[in-house]
Amino acid sequence: MATGDLLKIYADRLSQPSRAVIIFSQVNGIQFEEQKIKLFSPDVQKPDFIAANPLKKVPAISHGNFTLFESHAILTYLACWFLVPDHWYPSDLRKRAKIQSVLDWHHSNLRYGSTRYLMNTVLAPFLGKKPNLEAAAEYELKLGEAFSTIETLWLKDDSKFLLGNVQPSVADLSLVCETMQLHMLPEEDTKRILGPHKKIQQWVENVREATNPHFDEVHKHLFDTIAIFYKKA
Amino acid sequence: MATGDLLKIYADRLSQPSRAVIIFSQVNGIQFEEQKIKLFSPDVQKPDFIAANPLKKVPAISHGNFTLFESHAILTYLACWFLVPDHWYPSDLRKRAKIQSVLDWHHSNLRYGSTRYLMNTVLAPFLGKKPNLEAAAEYELKLGEAFSTIETLWLKDDSKFLLGNVQPSVADLSLVCETMQLHMLPEEDTKRILGPHKKIQQWVENVREATNPHFDEVHKHLFDTIAIFYKKA
Repeated sequence: MATGDLLKIYADRLSQPSRAVIIFSQVNGIQFEEQKIKLFSPDVQKPDFIAANPLKKVPAISHGNFTLFESHAILTYLACWFLVPDHWYPSDLRKRAKIQSVLDWHHSNLRYGSTRYLMNTVLAPFLGKKPNLEAAAEYELKLGEAFSTIETLWLKDDSKFLLGNVQPSVADLSLVCETMQLHMLPEEDTKRILGPHKKIQQWVENVREATNPHFDEVHKHLFDTIAIFYKKA
Repeated sequence: MATGDLLKIYADRLSQPSRAVIIFSQVNGIQFEEQKIKLFSPDVQKPDFIAANPLKKVPAISHGNFTLFESHAILTYLACWFLVPDHWYPSDLRKRAKIQSVLDWHHSNLRYGSTRYLMNTVLAPFLGKKPNLEAAAEYELKLGEAFSTIETLWLKDDSKFLLGNVQPSVADLSLVCETMQLHMLPEEDTKRILGPHKKIQQWVENVREATNPHFDEVHKHLFDTIAIFYKKA
């Protein structure tokens, strides 16, 4: 294992998967250099960032001469390379497969609903579009279904973390960082969407507690940005 | 390793990820019982299927008393459990991470564009909807971008398989089975979409050759169904 390789994490802390990778690395004492890439800025044209991810999306990493993008691939790579505590990404094949299943499901469900709801509401002006409330309503339904699935399948019997686990996995971190993104919405919308999901709220709190002080510190930029945005708006 | 566990694969061969899992198992000599689940039929209410996947989607597996859904999670679980040849899902961490990155990318790009293009065109009537050509045009763009990304990033220098590999991985199989789904479209649409992508066409052929006779046999039901559909239409 070439432990001497320098790890650079290209990230924008306003991006939910970027936060997941940074928190994961901090909690596990993985040494890295954070390369701040402000999305929608000239930062995305930096040659070393493009070398790490030609698709110009965050997060991406370079680790010595190795590069990688897609947050789930990064999380599982780091978990294995740095031999972090087993609960993050168990070496037991069946436990690992269950976590991989949640990670795969996430793309087309929670993440799909969440990002598209945001793109059709509060993020629309930044994408040069008008908010589309009809589309937003459809994605809100998808989001509600996703939260119900998480509560019913993976947080049943009031388990502290997904899949009945007593300690968090990379799936907890990825999905909770996604859920936190909904705080970008006006408070009444966040409450309407998250309000009915008490188990989700408790789970977010559990992941926050298990990964603090890093969780709060890494989310600070998001909440600062939100505060400025709604003061202006 | 409990090699004696019976593996059941719940699948509909009209579903692209179902085909990937079946072909993978056949090519690697993995013994399984195929449990045919016809989508949009009462099959999805069968208790043993719901036990394997409470979300009632294919593919899903049961393996002894272990159950799993999401095709990528299944493919990587089977690759590790049955110790298939290394090229399918390399044990080398960095090679594996690169494949995982393609698999993750797939969800929000090729699969996203492909399924939504189909849902807004030829599959619309089966979903109780009218075709939406405006939406379809948007997803066709997404699909074209996805194919261009694959050609530029992962099939560069005319490599035979993704990531410059000389033998296929689970990513090749998953993404090619998705690409095959476009044959559900009227021929002129398939040609318009795939026509400009010569490397994609060659890559599909390479994966087909590397996995035949299973590839053709497992795709037969798709092509038979398509033939009946267009004869009727």
